[in-house]
Amino acid sequence: MKIVLDAMGGDFGPAPNVEAAVSAAREFGWEIALVGRQELIRPLLVQHNTANLHLPIVHASEVIEMGEHPAQAVKTKKNSSMVVGMQMVRNGDADAFVTMGNTGGALAAALFHLGRIQGIQRPALSAVFPTAKGWVLLLDVGANADCKPEYLLQFALMGSIYAERVMGIRNPRVGLISNGEEETKGSELVQAAHRLLKQAPLNFIGNVEGRNLPAGSADVFVTDGFTGNVMIKLAEGMGEFIKGMLREEIMRTTIGKLGGLLIKDALTRISKRTDYQEIGGAPLLGVDGVVIIGHGRSQARAIRSALMRAAEAVERGVVDAIETGLQALPKLRPAIANEPS
Amino acid sequence: MKIVLDAMGGDFGPAPNVEAAVSAAREFGWEIALVGRQELIRPLLVQHNTANLHLPIVHASEVIEMGEHPAQAVKTKKNSSMVVGMQMVRNGDADAFVTMGNTGGALAAALFHLGRIQGIQRPALSAVFPTAKGWVLLLDVGANADCKPEYLLQFALMGSIYAERVMGIRNPRVGLISNGEEETKGSELVQAAHRLLKQAPLNFIGNVEGRNLPAGSADVFVTDGFTGNVMIKLAEGMGEFIKGMLREEIMRTTIGKLGGLLIKDALTRISKRTDYQEIGGAPLLGVDGVVIIGHGRSQARAIRSALMRAAEAVERGVVDAIETGLQALPKLRPAIANEPS
Repeated sequence: MKIVLDAMGGDFGPAPNVEAAVSAAREFGWEIALVGRQELIRPLLVQHNTANLHLPIVHASEVIEMGEHPAQAVKTKKNSSMVVGMQMVRNGDADAFVTMGNTGGALAAALFHLGRIQGIQRPALSAVFPTAKGWVLLLDVGANADCKPEYLLQFALMGSIYAERVMGIRNPRVGLISNGEEETKGSELVQAAHRLLKQAPLNFIGNVEGRNLPAGSADVFVTDGFTGNVMIKLAEGMGEFIKGMLREEIMRTTIGKLGGLLIKDALTRISKRTDYQEIGGAPLLGVDGVVIIGHGRSQARAIRSALMRAAEAVERGVVDAIETGLQALPKLRPAIANEPS
Repeated sequence: MKIVLDAMGGDFGPAPNVEAAVSAAREFGWEIALVGRQELIRPLLVQHNTANLHLPIVHASEVIEMGEHPAQAVKTKKNSSMVVGMQMVRNGDADAFVTMGNTGGALAAALFHLGRIQGIQRPALSAVFPTAKGWVLLLDVGANADCKPEYLLQFALMGSIYAERVMGIRNPRVGLISNGEEETKGSELVQAAHRLLKQAPLNFIGNVEGRNLPAGSADVFVTDGFTGNVMIKLAEGMGEFIKGMLREEIMRTTIGKLGGLLIKDALTRISKRTDYQEIGGAPLLGVDGVVIIGHGRSQARAIRSALMRAAEAVERGVVDAIETGLQALPKLRPAIANEPS
């Protein structure tokens, strides 16, 4: 197993990336290539005991920063850690690429330098989500603001394969996000996608609503990249809003503060149940290689988890499974989407 | 002031509607017509002291139930409380219609029997939302799953007028929901709507993301009815998910339970800060009359609040203001939406 990790990715620079790489290399024996500016990576790496570990540094002089325009940055920064890392995967020099960096940059670099899996019309960004019934997958969360029905069908297939192989969910339930559960509900896009999904060899449970995501009513939630992006950011914002109110109101009185101390363990258990660091990252699905993207604010533990997701996706053949799975989808022409079901 | 209240609307039947009508009629001196099945309403009404109150019963033998197909129900049930109530507003027999019933039914009944304000292309369902900075308005939350850029422009105008006149927010900030704050982000629809909004006489603050809704970064959040519907249901679901986890983890240990007792006042204050019953309902904007729609699960206090919102919308001339406001919008043709800004 050889994973290339974007040592420059994330809000905290190379340090947590180097720490995560050392930890994963030691525990699992993988080779983890650290791609980025060697003058920054090397001084960090020598602080660790790396005897017998496979941790090559691959120098890349440029960095795609968080605020940069993705496609432009990828085109002009040919020696950026993202571009160099993706090229290693394409050339067979690595099995997977992991980054905590600019998500749009990773998407653009993957599209330009890895390309799509044959037959995939659009890759999708996915996100994992804590729910009342465990972790679920939501996609697309931002790669494609405008979608066609066939894209959503392919997202469903890809999400289903990832949920089964990496998240360990047998026969994952696929739900299509809509503004109502009835089959006739939804935008034109969703109604057409519904008709396609009904014919596909997937465990399609029909339309689901926004409330079904935190309820965990499906394992894979399929939507366009606009809606999915609004959803993950709204969910995140709701969590912060409620946490903020709780803290504020508890701290308002002495009795409240005492109560706050007594429920501290309960709050810790909630943090654990919803701890993204255990997951670490979610795949960019549909590109011709394993790419795992994590939060910019990831610390070493989250990055280490993302490396584990990458290894699982490689070992369990997610990319090949998507390519094979495409053959089983009904052959679709755009016209089908407009025919009555 | 004469408001017609759908006595049959909501999950709890006529009782809370009658109670709310009596309470509002007594406190404010309004005439409140109770529309619905008189054999159910009258026995409830006589249980109250209604001396000197104006509470006529308007008999309507049919009811549009919660699960019914809206347009079909409105067409076939000509003597339903919703249809009869809307007709009273259209005929000038009442100033406003308030219902806790089937939202789609209210929308269909309003479209068929009140019609649109001249120049409005599509009415919008709105929702009020508790945020870190007070209540905000989100629209459309479900009337139009597929929108054109001009619809969103009109939603922004209508929402802005309602926020200013009824919610008391001076020069309300209008945000356009998108998958990124940059002007270039968004679906084709959102990018085109952005260009229109920039030219409009509104306090347009640009694109906002999902997280900005609970943060209260704008006063009026504009989106299509598909996204808006997914958003309100996701936000509701997130609230339930977090509350459920909190309860579960607090109740797991004795110390946690004690802590739970001590933070009870804090939780009560949070409930008050986010108490929808104080708001009671949100307007269906763009139809030619005041229509306020509330939750099906409303009790008397929420219904009374919804009656207050209706009275405010009438007194502060929301419908006329929308008609006038339309004149100030740049004259738009669909083609404009496709020109570069």
